[in-house]
Amino acid sequence: MRAGIWLIGARGSVATTSVVGALALRAGLTDPVGCVTAHPEMNGAALPGFGDLYFGGHDVTTGSLAKKAEQLAAAGIVPARLVQALQSDLEAVDADLRHAPEGATQAATARAIAHDLAEFRTRHRLDRVVVVNVASTEAAVEQQPAHAGLAALDTALAAPGNVLPPSSLYAYAAFTAGCPYVDFTPSTGARLPALAELAAKRGLPYAGHDGKTGETLLKSVLAPMFAMRNLAVRSWSGVNLLGGGDGANLVDPGANAAKAVSKQRVLHETLGYAPDGDTRIDYVPDIGDFKTAWDLITFAGFLGTGMCLQFTWQGCDSALAAPLVLDLARITLAAHEAGRTGPLEPLAYFFKDPMGDVDHALHAQWETLRTFVAGLGGGR
Amino acid sequence: MRAGIWLIGARGSVATTSVVGALALRAGLTDPVGCVTAHPEMNGAALPGFGDLYFGGHDVTTGSLAKKAEQLAAAGIVPARLVQALQSDLEAVDADLRHAPEGATQAATARAIAHDLAEFRTRHRLDRVVVVNVASTEAAVEQQPAHAGLAALDTALAAPGNVLPPSSLYAYAAFTAGCPYVDFTPSTGARLPALAELAAKRGLPYAGHDGKTGETLLKSVLAPMFAMRNLAVRSWSGVNLLGGGDGANLVDPGANAAKAVSKQRVLHETLGYAPDGDTRIDYVPDIGDFKTAWDLITFAGFLGTGMCLQFTWQGCDSALAAPLVLDLARITLAAHEAGRTGPLEPLAYFFKDPMGDVDHALHAQWETLRTFVAGLGGGR
Amino acid sequence: MRAGIWLIGARGSVATTSVVGALALRAGLTDPVGCVTAHPEMNGAALPGFGDLYFGGHDVTTGSLAKKAEQLAAAGIVPARLVQALQSDLEAVDADLRHAPEGATQAATARAIAHDLAEFRTRHRLDRVVVVNVASTEAAVEQQPAHAGLAALDTALAAPGNVLPPSSLYAYAAFTAGCPYVDFTPSTGARLPALAELAAKRGLPYAGHDGKTGETLLKSVLAPMFAMRNLAVRSWSGVNLLGGGDGANLVDPGANAAKAVSKQRVLHETLGYAPDGDTRIDYVPDIGDFKTAWDLITFAGFLGTGMCLQFTWQGCDSALAAPLVLDLARITLAAHEAGRTGPLEPLAYFFKDPMGDVDHALHAQWETLRTFVAGLGGGR
Amino acid sequence: MRAGIWLIGARGSVATTSVVGALALRAGLTDPVGCVTAHPEMNGAALPGFGDLYFGGHDVTTGSLAKKAEQLAAAGIVPARLVQALQSDLEAVDADLRHAPEGATQAATARAIAHDLAEFRTRHRLDRVVVVNVASTEAAVEQQPAHAGLAALDTALAAPGNVLPPSSLYAYAAFTAGCPYVDFTPSTGARLPALAELAAKRGLPYAGHDGKTGETLLKSVLAPMFAMRNLAVRSWSGVNLLGGGDGANLVDPGANAAKAVSKQRVLHETLGYAPDGDTRIDYVPDIGDFKTAWDLITFAGFLGTGMCLQFTWQGCDSALAAPLVLDLARITLAAHEAGRTGPLEPLAYFFKDPMGDVDHALHAQWETLRTFVAGLGGGR
Repeated sequence: MRAGIWLIGARGSVATTSVVGALALRAGLTDPVGCVTAHPEMNGAALPGFGDLYFGGHDVTTGSLAKKAEQLAAAGIVPARLVQALQSDLEAVDADLRHAPEGATQAATARAIAHDLAEFRTRHRLDRVVVVNVASTEAAVEQQPAHAGLAALDTALAAPGNVLPPSSLYAYAAFTAGCPYVDFTPSTGARLPALAELAAKRGLPYAGHDGKTGETLLKSVLAPMFAMRNLAVRSWSGVNLLGGGDGANLVDPGANAAKAVSKQRVLHETLGYAPDGDTRIDYVPDIGDFKTAWDLITFAGFLGTGMCLQFTWQGCDSALAAPLVLDLARITLAAHEAGRTGPLEPLAYFFKDPMGDVDHALHAQWETLRTFVAGLGGGR
Repeated sequence: MRAGIWLIGARGSVATTSVVGALALRAGLTDPVGCVTAHPEMNGAALPGFGDLYFGGHDVTTGSLAKKAEQLAAAGIVPARLVQALQSDLEAVDADLRHAPEGATQAATARAIAHDLAEFRTRHRLDRVVVVNVASTEAAVEQQPAHAGLAALDTALAAPGNVLPPSSLYAYAAFTAGCPYVDFTPSTGARLPALAELAAKRGLPYAGHDGKTGETLLKSVLAPMFAMRNLAVRSWSGVNLLGGGDGANLVDPGANAAKAVSKQRVLHETLGYAPDGDTRIDYVPDIGDFKTAWDLITFAGFLGTGMCLQFTWQGCDSALAAPLVLDLARITLAAHEAGRTGPLEPLAYFFKDPMGDVDHALHAQWETLRTFVAGLGGGR
Repeated sequence: MRAGIWLIGARGSVATTSVVGALALRAGLTDPVGCVTAHPEMNGAALPGFGDLYFGGHDVTTGSLAKKAEQLAAAGIVPARLVQALQSDLEAVDADLRHAPEGATQAATARAIAHDLAEFRTRHRLDRVVVVNVASTEAAVEQQPAHAGLAALDTALAAPGNVLPPSSLYAYAAFTAGCPYVDFTPSTGARLPALAELAAKRGLPYAGHDGKTGETLLKSVLAPMFAMRNLAVRSWSGVNLLGGGDGANLVDPGANAAKAVSKQRVLHETLGYAPDGDTRIDYVPDIGDFKTAWDLITFAGFLGTGMCLQFTWQGCDSALAAPLVLDLARITLAAHEAGRTGPLEPLAYFFKDPMGDVDHALHAQWETLRTFVAGLGGGR
Repeated sequence: MRAGIWLIGARGSVATTSVVGALALRAGLTDPVGCVTAHPEMNGAALPGFGDLYFGGHDVTTGSLAKKAEQLAAAGIVPARLVQALQSDLEAVDADLRHAPEGATQAATARAIAHDLAEFRTRHRLDRVVVVNVASTEAAVEQQPAHAGLAALDTALAAPGNVLPPSSLYAYAAFTAGCPYVDFTPSTGARLPALAELAAKRGLPYAGHDGKTGETLLKSVLAPMFAMRNLAVRSWSGVNLLGGGDGANLVDPGANAAKAVSKQRVLHETLGYAPDGDTRIDYVPDIGDFKTAWDLITFAGFLGTGMCLQFTWQGCDSALAAPLVLDLARITLAAHEAGRTGPLEPLAYFFKDPMGDVDHALHAQWETLRTFVAGLGGGR
């Protein structure tokens, strides 16, 4: 399969790390550490090869990908030697990046997006293209009547005003261009009835939301541990300090709230009750991309004896997210080829806020994912 | 089933907490928090009820159980209100505790132990009795020819000297008395060919080793997390500070080494490789039973980017161990009744150093245990 | 000196722990651990003895002090044995507690407060009485013209409405009754020009604000360490999880903001610059009085190399505050006797948000305090 | 003053970072962050300028300084841009490094060392040269009769065998060459009566031992905090994980013990009693130079209530040590010029295991140091 990945937010840290990594894998300069689809139990024949991926994307900023990669190298996020070795490959990808279109109406913008996607597919003779949103987190949107059905949405898009948030407009454009869509952020994306209708009509799969890269990943193994041991979790409080682009964006209370809700969901659904405590997200510029999360869990054991667990996670967000972006793209492309449509619930393993009424325990999600990938068959 | 639990180290913290808890459960004064066999998925009809358990045991120390329980209450390990309410029940159990016998030969000692077990069974008209070792950790033993077969062992036991460490001598006595045996410590216990031969001959099951109550419990969910995410664990270092009886005992380098090896096994077997780093155990009297463990895990993500996780576990060892002692006793008694013999490998969920070549991931062990318990049938 | 301590918030955790502790010290049942004035370098002859202190106070709640002390014992804040032993002493103090008065105007309320103070002094033939505010934190107040001078304030108090927050009204009443005033909370207290005028007129000293019991105590030694080593602190972020009465109160954004500002002041003033990062306060009921604070400090060393320090403080707020309440009362009573008036700046050692333009390094504050206490002379 | 610094272990991480930093300061490419002598209160006119320092040294390894600097840059210890910019300056310093001499007797070795020192001084027309030991930690030495006096020592050195450990032989050689000596390690160095006699005879100052760069630095501010608050420290346990050259060396139990004793001294001397607990040092290669230390402190507050503090220090050892090496050299050179002789006790601020019966509280040491530096006068 000749496969394309179209990134929304293509000049951001996550996107750039994904591109540098995929190019390095193609060139044999690195190993797929952190790539779930490189795990022996997951590496199905149906998935497009790491070396078969082409990259394009939209962004609202300008500046070269190579420059951004150098900044990431200076910050210790990607190795400088890779950026140097991949200079010309990065420039080639740069030629496939486009400035985010802005039409007179959202319908016009969507057409321009879809046009860029079609051109990308033609230019590289791609069998299929997946659109992946790695742009900044949006605030939660208010429900609107036009979200309820495709006909009403089409009408509203043709009128002035913004009936859709950007993440949803990209999903709309992707679907009209025949592309599956993955949302790696907590934004609205394809989660509107009108968009579900469009995806169904076009026979397209989609996935989301909010890549599970750090604190929530830990919750998805620790909460089941407490449950399996029949220990009573009394409180679970967390604070996330982050300084990258997403951190700055999350200073906005709307975006912060969206993210924090997504982060607590796993507890309630795994334990069967909601312990005391909240998850905080704070922006600390000096910390940069090396997010630091601290969680305190108080729990009661036998006869009510109180105990506690605390952990500190110091992870590089982009380096954790990028391999999952490649994983999600590979699996979604194979799912598209295999004819799967609608929300890809078996991909819950990757997300803080997965689609569907799914198990939040990581090991259960792993089994579901493994079965799903195996079922995609193989033979390209 | 009228069932008995015979505790080796019956006046220690773990044993006393187990007894207080079981009596409190029988009296309806507490909930079975921390009891795995109280989990909805585990609570098979075949298991003897919490209220059907009788307690007896051996110890090398004297002093009343009620006194010990008061000390535990003062240290915050069990609630004072329970100790007050259960005063007379504790005195009743006290009447079933015996001083650890010491014969002229180990054979004589074993006979005396078996005699105490038989008498306990008769006195309370018990259907069966399980022996559970919760005494202090022993140093690892040197292999001896007499360990290889039952005939040689019988001969050696009849001669002067100590061919078996205490934990193994109790296993021998338990088997001769027709009792299954569980070792909650890292000591040798039933892990000798001669004892396996004896258990097989008598049709008895046994289980061990080293209850998984804290740091290793966390390893058994965190190591699989790193493996499932295909992240490369570079180092895993841990320190355990503990001040209770077991801590004092572990100052002995032999016992410490036995415990530390048991603690690192999960990493190698789950990850498929051994990261840098060791597990330390230090005795800090002021900490008492509220063990504090700190682990630092360094790992590499995509493109080799270095990150780290650290956690601090502040758990009350006895309060974590006691419900598992009740769980192990209930399951082993039911397994005995159901005719299972030999090492109970499906009980790996409970142990740091389980028997057999088993999966060390907690969720896999949970599934195995669930299936095993369900298979014990029910209907008493 | 026969000395009285009148507590505002007299049935709260801090007040009750202070009373239990002082009674226990008088009865010889405990040592003055945590009492700064018991330090060999601080224990001046001028200070009233621990055994010479009489307690009274106001509170808006009812219920006996002995009951409250039992609750504190159940929560592990004070030893149960002390509460049992001091039963009758606690009842005696109970007889000196009064319900917080509420008059038709604030002037009337102030008169009622002053009346209670005078009666307390007469009843026990006390040489002097200090009023200490340990009530809940108030939101910051808006400046009003009547705060600027005593004449305007007297007029406003006689009119309907609340020109003063409770903490300031108690300060006003204390001063009119000839009593020095200490504010252990971040509330406004005596920090208004009109009240400074009143204190000066009556020749009274006063002190505050916001007892330094945990995270800020650590900041006051760690920030100087970074400064002395010429290391560049890049960010200092903190989260405080607390579940006691003050925690519930701090859910109110106004009170929270007042407290958080008070907590960051030490950094700016010690380092000479304000690093990135904030201090958060979150209410987690299960944590109770055992406050848990986590701080992450990122800093640059030689050649800009980035490093970090994190700490977790698990302290019992009442047990940390109570001895300081006794210290502050003893020193302020002695200062009153020695004729000191106005804001007691040398007491900065005790406060997060001290009065005056003072050094925030703990060791410098210690020296200042030591000199001040020595200067109070002695010989009663 | 034209001043020279002669480094023992000149190709190690600390030495190389010191040289890169001093060259960068001379070239105006960096600021003296982490240099105590750059603090406004400390920056006396008597100290030689950062730009006036010449470097030479001995090492047992070969390989260029520039190569070592590149390795440090790859490990994130020094910035790559500095290493590139200082290439030729590093080569110039390389020309002043010598292989550690090995004579037929220790006397012969000492003569060869002293000869290298004299040549270095002549070559660069230096006013004075200080010898600083930053080589690996040695095991503690056994006392020998020849250590007691200079005459006996001279005799023993002329005979075959090794009467002195390397650190002491370098101190001997430095003194014979008229150079002051600083020991940044826990090794024996000049701490022998015979060497004190030699230093006195030659009118030379010396300083040590064991640079206070991380965990002990924290102890020197936290232990006084507990003391000033009159809180009772019950236990203080620490573990240091380090992977650099010193870590590998400390696997040797002798060296480890020397270091651990040095690390606990501050507690006993500051608190006036020795709490429970030990300090551990473990070698974890993956951690490299970014040492991670975790300490748990349990303490009792008012009425015996138990609480705890824990901290994790993640510091780059070389980046913390290097500026202190420059500080010590500058101050010791100025002390030599000012005619100070014998052990420089006022330099306790810099050391875990300082000379003399000194205060271990950091702020007291700071005051002492400030007074000392001010007293060295100025005017070159």
